[in-house]
Amino acid sequence: MKVLLYGYGLMGKKVAHQLREKDEFDLIGVVSYEFDEKAPEAMYSNLTEVQDRADVIIDFSHPNNLDDILAYAKKNKTKVVFATTGFSKEQLDKIEEASKEIAIFQSYNTSFGIQMVTKILRQVAKEFYDNGYDIEILEKHHNQKIDAPSGTAKLLYEVMEDEIQGTTPVYDRSSLHEKRKKEEIGIQALRGGTIFGEHEIMFAGLDEIIEIKHTALSKDVFVQGALAAAKALQDKEAGLFTLKTLY
Amino acid sequence: MKVLLYGYGLMGKKVAHQLREKDEFDLIGVVSYEFDEKAPEAMYSNLTEVQDRADVIIDFSHPNNLDDILAYAKKNKTKVVFATTGFSKEQLDKIEEASKEIAIFQSYNTSFGIQMVTKILRQVAKEFYDNGYDIEILEKHHNQKIDAPSGTAKLLYEVMEDEIQGTTPVYDRSSLHEKRKKEEIGIQALRGGTIFGEHEIMFAGLDEIIEIKHTALSKDVFVQGALAAAKALQDKEAGLFTLKTLY
Amino acid sequence: MKVLLYGYGLMGKKVAHQLREKDEFDLIGVVSYEFDEKAPEAMYSNLTEVQDRADVIIDFSHPNNLDDILAYAKKNKTKVVFATTGFSKEQLDKIEEASKEIAIFQSYNTSFGIQMVTKILRQVAKEFYDNGYDIEILEKHHNQKIDAPSGTAKLLYEVMEDEIQGTTPVYDRSSLHEKRKKEEIGIQALRGGTIFGEHEIMFAGLDEIIEIKHTALSKDVFVQGALAAAKALQDKEAGLFTLKTLY
Amino acid sequence: MKVLLYGYGLMGKKVAHQLREKDEFDLIGVVSYEFDEKAPEAMYSNLTEVQDRADVIIDFSHPNNLDDILAYAKKNKTKVVFATTGFSKEQLDKIEEASKEIAIFQSYNTSFGIQMVTKILRQVAKEFYDNGYDIEILEKHHNQKIDAPSGTAKLLYEVMEDEIQGTTPVYDRSSLHEKRKKEEIGIQALRGGTIFGEHEIMFAGLDEIIEIKHTALSKDVFVQGALAAAKALQDKEAGLFTLKTLY
Repeated sequence: MKVLLYGYGLMGKKVAHQLREKDEFDLIGVVSYEFDEKAPEAMYSNLTEVQDRADVIIDFSHPNNLDDILAYAKKNKTKVVFATTGFSKEQLDKIEEASKEIAIFQSYNTSFGIQMVTKILRQVAKEFYDNGYDIEILEKHHNQKIDAPSGTAKLLYEVMEDEIQGTTPVYDRSSLHEKRKKEEIGIQALRGGTIFGEHEIMFAGLDEIIEIKHTALSKDVFVQGALAAAKALQDKEAGLFTLKTLY
Repeated sequence: MKVLLYGYGLMGKKVAHQLREKDEFDLIGVVSYEFDEKAPEAMYSNLTEVQDRADVIIDFSHPNNLDDILAYAKKNKTKVVFATTGFSKEQLDKIEEASKEIAIFQSYNTSFGIQMVTKILRQVAKEFYDNGYDIEILEKHHNQKIDAPSGTAKLLYEVMEDEIQGTTPVYDRSSLHEKRKKEEIGIQALRGGTIFGEHEIMFAGLDEIIEIKHTALSKDVFVQGALAAAKALQDKEAGLFTLKTLY
Repeated sequence: MKVLLYGYGLMGKKVAHQLREKDEFDLIGVVSYEFDEKAPEAMYSNLTEVQDRADVIIDFSHPNNLDDILAYAKKNKTKVVFATTGFSKEQLDKIEEASKEIAIFQSYNTSFGIQMVTKILRQVAKEFYDNGYDIEILEKHHNQKIDAPSGTAKLLYEVMEDEIQGTTPVYDRSSLHEKRKKEEIGIQALRGGTIFGEHEIMFAGLDEIIEIKHTALSKDVFVQGALAAAKALQDKEAGLFTLKTLY
Repeated sequence: MKVLLYGYGLMGKKVAHQLREKDEFDLIGVVSYEFDEKAPEAMYSNLTEVQDRADVIIDFSHPNNLDDILAYAKKNKTKVVFATTGFSKEQLDKIEEASKEIAIFQSYNTSFGIQMVTKILRQVAKEFYDNGYDIEILEKHHNQKIDAPSGTAKLLYEVMEDEIQGTTPVYDRSSLHEKRKKEEIGIQALRGGTIFGEHEIMFAGLDEIIEIKHTALSKDVFVQGALAAAKALQDKEAGLFTLKTLY
C-alpha cells in the first residue's frame, strides 16, 4: 500500500516511524511546508510536486492543507485519512463533497479503544435509557487543550443520540436551578497537567451505576488508529467514513 | 403471579415490601423458621404446611432449606428463584437435577446492572483479547463478607472464559515471580467498611485502557433483580437459568 | 447533653434513632410542624412551646424555622447545629449575627470523611499548586438535586482558595476557547440515578495525577457528622463554626 | 553539581537528557558496560576508570554494579542516588553500611507525586484507622513487570505500618474464608498492557469511602524524582535516605 504522509511534526514523525516498520505499508514520500529534520523518503513542500500516485494519504498536518490534499486525491483517486483536528464547518462540507468521488476517513480520535467503546454504546445505551438510567459523559485532557468538550466526547454523545433519539446535551449545570431531565446528557470537561485523554460514560439508575471508561496513555494510540483506518479504506470506492461507520 | 417468599430476614422483608406494592405479584405466604416481626400474609415455618399452589418461590433464606423448597416445587410444578448464596457443590447438583422438571433461576447477583455488564462482556471480551488486550477483574465489598472473590466476580470471569476459551484465573500475584501470561485473568478482592459491591473489568492494551465498572448503592438492586427473574421465568417450562442464560 | 431535634422527616428520624441509642445524648423533645408518625419523646410544633432548656438544637428541618430556632437559642444560651440546606444570604447573615452570642455550627455536609478530605487539602493543596499542578473538582449526585455544583464542592473549593489565594472557579469550559489558566480551578457536576454523593479533587502535573475521592454510601454519614458537631460545640461559648473551623 | 550517571539504557538516556538541559547540573561522565549509542560526555565502562571527583552518582543501571559504585563513592565522598530496582537483602545491607560514611538515597519510586501521597498518609492514616476505617492498597502495572506487589505499594504499606503500628499485610484473600480483621491491610496487584503505574489507597468506613490515587503517565516522573533527590542530598553529610526521610 503506497502511502504519502502529510505533516512531519510530533505526530507525523510517529506515523512515519510506524509506517517504516510495517511491511504492508510503503511510505513513498513526506509532505510538509518545513522540515526540522530530514526524512529518509522523498520530501515535498506540497502535493503538486508529487509525480507518483499513492494509494492513501495520511494527514496529521493542518486544516490549511485541505485544498492541496483534495486536489491531489481527486486527480489520482487516492484515499485519504484525515486525523487533523480543527476543520471549519465549510471545510467539513468540502470533505463531504469530495467523498462522493473518493473514500475518506475523518475523525478526531482514531484509537481502537474508542472504536470499541462506541461499539458498546451502540449496543447498550438505549437499553439503559429505556430502563430509567441517566447518562452523563466526563472527559479529562491536558492543560494545553483549547476546545471543550473534546471532539471524542462529542462523538460519544452523537453515537448515543443516534441510538436513543431526542437527547439534549448539557454543558453547564451551574447555570440551571432545576432537577435533571431524563433526556439530558451532561458532558463535562476537566483540564490539567499532561493528561493524554480520559473519557467516561456513566449510566446511573436506581441504586446502581455502570461506568465505561477509556484512558489513553500516549499519543501512539492515534497513530495506530490512523494506520488501521488506512487499511480499512482499502476496499472502499468512495464515501465519508468515521469511527461510527468504518468498522 | 402467586408468590411464596422463603426467608424473612433483612432481604426477605425488602422483597416482601416490593411484592406488596406491585400489582403483577400476589404474595400468598411467607416461610421462615422464625419471625422477628409478623407478616400480614400467611406465615409458615416450612413448605409442607402450605396447601395453596404458588407460581413461583423466591428464596432469600439459607441453603439448609433447599430440600424443603425442591420437594414443594416438584410436586406443584412451581418455578424457583434462588437468590440465596453459599450452596455447596452437592446442593448445586441437586438444583441442576431438579431443573429437568421445573424452571429454576439461580444466581448470586440478580441486579439489572450486572446483567447488562455480562451482556457487554459477551460482546467485546473476545475481541479485546484477540487484539492483544489483557483482562483483569477487581471487586470490592464490605468487611463482613467471608468469601473472596465474590460470586459475582466469578460469574463475570465465567462469562469471559465461555467467550474466549482457555483462560486461567489468577487470585494471587504475590506468590508468582514471572511476567503475566496472556491467558491469565487476574481476579482481586478488596474488603472494607460497608461497601455494597463494586465490580470492575479492565482491558489493558498498548497505551489504552478500557474499564467497565458496576457499583451497587444498596441491597435493593438484588431485590429488583429477583423480581425481574421471577417474571422472566413465567414462560419457561423447565431448565436451569442464570444471568448468563435467562435474558 | 440535652438535645432538641428540629425536623422529623427522613433525616430527622435517622438523627432521633441515633440519639436514642447513644448514652451521651438525652433527646428531650422533637419539634416539627407535622408528624407523620409519633415520636416517643415530647412533640412540639415550634420552640415557643418548649419549657425545658436544651444544651443543643440539631436542625434538619427547613430554612423557614430559622427565626424560631434563633429566638429560643439566644434566650436559653443553647448551641445550634444547622444541617439544613438552602439558607438565603439574609438568613446566613442572621446566623452569623446570632453567633456573636451563641455557638453555632452550620454546614451543608457534616460527614467525618469530608472533614478528613478538607484536612488533607489544607495540608497539600498549596504545595501541589506551587509545584505546577493544576487543580480540578468533580462531584456526582442523584437526579433530584437542584443546585450545582454541590455545597460540599463549593466548600472544598473555598478550603483550597483559602490556602492558595488568588484562584478562580470555572464552572463551564464549553463556553471558553482558550487554554486553561494556572489559577483556574474547574468545578464540574454530574447528575444521575440515586447517587448519594461523590466528590473528587484532581491534582494534575507533569505526567503525574493525584486524585482524592470521597464517596458517601448513605445519608447516615450526615447524621453521624451532625452528632459529632454537637459534641464538638460543647466547650464553645460563642462563634460560627464550620467543618473548616470546628475540628 | 558534578554528576556521574551510571546506566545508559532507556532510563539512563532520559536522565542524561534532563541533566544536560539544567544549569544546576554538570554531567561529567556516563558509565555503562556497553553503549548502544555514543554519549557526548566522557564514556566509561566502570568507575575505576574515572579520575575526576563527582558530587553525586545517579544510578539507573543494575544491582551488579553496586560494589563498583560504593567503592568509588566512599573513596571520593560522593553521594549516591540509587534508582535501580531489584537489590537483594545482602545488597541493601551493604548500602546501609556504606551510608554511615556517605549520603545515599535509595528508593524504588522517586516521583514527586508519590512523595506527596506518603506525606498525606503520614498525616491521616492513623486517624482513619482509629476511627474504624479499613485500609486497602491496590496497584496496577504493565504486563512485563515481574514482581507483585510493586516496590511502591510496599513503601506505601510501610509508611502506614509506621504510623499505625501492628498492621498485617494480606496479599491473597481467596485462600482465606473469614471476615477481614481490622488490623489487616490488603495489598492487591493488577497487571495489563503498558500501564506505567497506578497506586490507590482506600479508607472504607461506615457508609463512607475515601480513596487516594496516584497515576504515572510516563517514566519521566522517575527521572524528575531522581534529580530532585540528588539536589536534596546536597546538604547531607551521611545517612540512608528514602522518600520517607529525605523531604
